[in-house]
Amino acid sequence: MRNIKLLIEYDGTKFNGWQKQPNKLNIQGEIEQAIEVITHEHCDLIASGRTDAGVNALGQVANFKTNSDIDIEKLPYALNSQLKKSIVIKEAVEVEERFHSRYSVHSKTYRYTINNSKQGTAIFREMEYHFPLVLDEVKMNEAIKSFIGVHDFKAFKASGTSSKSSVREIYDAKVWRDNDRVMIELTGNGFLYNMVRIIAGTLVDVGIGKIEAKDVAQIIESKDRSLAGKTLPATGLCLVKVDY
Amino acid sequence: MRNIKLLIEYDGTKFNGWQKQPNKLNIQGEIEQAIEVITHEHCDLIASGRTDAGVNALGQVANFKTNSDIDIEKLPYALNSQLKKSIVIKEAVEVEERFHSRYSVHSKTYRYTINNSKQGTAIFREMEYHFPLVLDEVKMNEAIKSFIGVHDFKAFKASGTSSKSSVREIYDAKVWRDNDRVMIELTGNGFLYNMVRIIAGTLVDVGIGKIEAKDVAQIIESKDRSLAGKTLPATGLCLVKVDY
Repeated sequence: MRNIKLLIEYDGTKFNGWQKQPNKLNIQGEIEQAIEVITHEHCDLIASGRTDAGVNALGQVANFKTNSDIDIEKLPYALNSQLKKSIVIKEAVEVEERFHSRYSVHSKTYRYTINNSKQGTAIFREMEYHFPLVLDEVKMNEAIKSFIGVHDFKAFKASGTSSKSSVREIYDAKVWRDNDRVMIELTGNGFLYNMVRIIAGTLVDVGIGKIEAKDVAQIIESKDRSLAGKTLPATGLCLVKVDY
Repeated sequence: MRNIKLLIEYDGTKFNGWQKQPNKLNIQGEIEQAIEVITHEHCDLIASGRTDAGVNALGQVANFKTNSDIDIEKLPYALNSQLKKSIVIKEAVEVEERFHSRYSVHSKTYRYTINNSKQGTAIFREMEYHFPLVLDEVKMNEAIKSFIGVHDFKAFKASGTSSKSSVREIYDAKVWRDNDRVMIELTGNGFLYNMVRIIAGTLVDVGIGKIEAKDVAQIIESKDRSLAGKTLPATGLCLVKVDY
């Protein structure tokens, strides 16, 4: 069987998240349906990970196996002709049989975008979180460096979620400003449920002086969710890329 | 009477353009209604110019006169609380009585954004025009320089539109690439109906080699609409700012 890897962009505001679920519009289901139309086969599409309702992706990766002999160059055009405009298959490549979108991940990069103007944005309202108080992005960038390395991120995971281990490695992390926008970007081997949104909430507290940049390392060490900031909304979060 | 100038951002894809018209959702009507709720007075809102259906604005300017003594600092908050999220009043300032959003314009800056990837974009599909063939942005930037200066732009106006003169001055014009995006930006004292969209269409022809960059000056001189490129869609066009 051929193993096909897709690079996918989507506007998550139009869906109840990636994962297939009955009677709810979801990205996985939409793409599987398009693949089934094209290949005339049942399809199980495996993503690098789920994204929640409202989360955008510029570079989600997913793979599926097929007996279809469709030309790989033509596949994105064929799939996009079936899909809603809120999902775009940017690329399709044939990969080794052992490639698995979730297990083979080396790193993922997420970006959280804050619109830091007084009144917010009309045009980008579904991809930026509006926070009106002036943020100190230099302090936020100082604070985010504490996340780099191997840590137990228990303080930064949604309470009540069960995952075997809350230890993850962050390879790179930075905050920068582009006019009215403050961007938070993290690259790591994996992220816990709501982890990026809680980190972003904590960094906003640093940006307004509620938490000192130097105290963030202790908050990580504490493993205490109540010491970290609040979970920012899904709007603003984007899965930028997945590396293998 | 006080004369109040507003700086406005809007998502034009949700409206039938700026101009007030019966039974059609329009930006002017929405803002006038919000002002009337806040000031308890009839309002005539004058913009720097109309924008068509689907055209976005990051920095539209409009003014209105009022007897209301509302605190100017609070006005954007009050108006935004009344408006749909697709319109944001970014700023309000009190200006001299003789200030007129249309007659006092010194220059306007428009940007046309082309998504120049093979498959297009899901997230930015309502603010970028998708053109899949590879564009040579260096040649496009060479060609756009011919527009700078005082010219009769008859070749770049929608046929059938009546305006007294088709002479305009372009102060600055440039094309650049940011990864998959090619941006076209023009600053001038005024623009004819569809002018930016026809210039963008002509530059796309330059970008694919259908028109030589050096021939653009002659197309301008010809005043012949049939020699210029086609009118690109409103999606992709944004009124970036208006200077006075």
